[in-house]
Amino acid sequence: MIDIRPIAKGEGALLLPMTHVIADSHQPGSVKATAEDYERTFSSEHPIVGALLARIDGVVAGAAVWHRSFSTNAGREIMYLEDLAVLPAFRRRGVAQALMKAVAKLAVAKGYPKIYWLAMPWNTGAVQFYEGIGAQMQPENLLCWLDGPALEALAR
Amino acid sequence: MIDIRPIAKGEGALLLPMTHVIADSHQPGSVKATAEDYERTFSSEHPIVGALLARIDGVVAGAAVWHRSFSTNAGREIMYLEDLAVLPAFRRRGVAQALMKAVAKLAVAKGYPKIYWLAMPWNTGAVQFYEGIGAQMQPENLLCWLDGPALEALAR
Repeated sequence: MIDIRPIAKGEGALLLPMTHVIADSHQPGSVKATAEDYERTFSSEHPIVGALLARIDGVVAGAAVWHRSFSTNAGREIMYLEDLAVLPAFRRRGVAQALMKAVAKLAVAKGYPKIYWLAMPWNTGAVQFYEGIGAQMQPENLLCWLDGPALEALAR
Repeated sequence: MIDIRPIAKGEGALLLPMTHVIADSHQPGSVKATAEDYERTFSSEHPIVGALLARIDGVVAGAAVWHRSFSTNAGREIMYLEDLAVLPAFRRRGVAQALMKAVAKLAVAKGYPKIYWLAMPWNTGAVQFYEGIGAQMQPENLLCWLDGPALEALAR
């Protein structure tokens, strides 16, 4: 039985294992977030970020983190799925499916016409899963970013 | 002389030409946004979206639209650049550079450690421009989305 609920006050630390699981598959050792960061973010008075925690028998098994986004094309707020993670010990038990279903329910309830997210094409398990839930996909997007000294230099 | 300022109340309609320019290069005829949508969004009491308008001799030449985002890895808000557009008549005059500089200044002023955005690899002019301002890039991202009947079906 998979139980899914929005993250509650005081549960920030429960999200960290999922953040580490995702970082381990991309850039191990890169997590800087703390439980306090999550507490502050999720209990903000006007939050832009939300998280759903999935539990099996009371134990946290996975999470989805989403944030509010905006489409200039649609002229409406839409939902960006920042993270979808299931802890290794709980895989192949329908946790990701249950989380995506809960995310979709939330989007519809909030009136968001679209959920979007990024995936890596080499993550074939994830790609098959996303195809299975009816997601559309556009390959070959270039993810660009500016941070650190490059950001500071441009801002000067 | 390029003048860059945040979009002001009553200026929502001024952003629409840039939205159409971007849509024309991806999916012509797909714009659903109205000036009223933009008015409501940019004058919200707790906005998540912002826009900078670039003018040359008082005429709107381009725009950058950004929104607040969040990195679970960093545990901090970051900035997502949703649109960067320059109207055809005003290209090759430094408008995009001036807009990106203004976006970077804004990010630094707001304490955001990172700006990120998506580009299409076939848009070589844009890719070269982003390289020139010091952006890092990761190719082959799969952009995934759920909307319409597929979103409704999953939410059921």
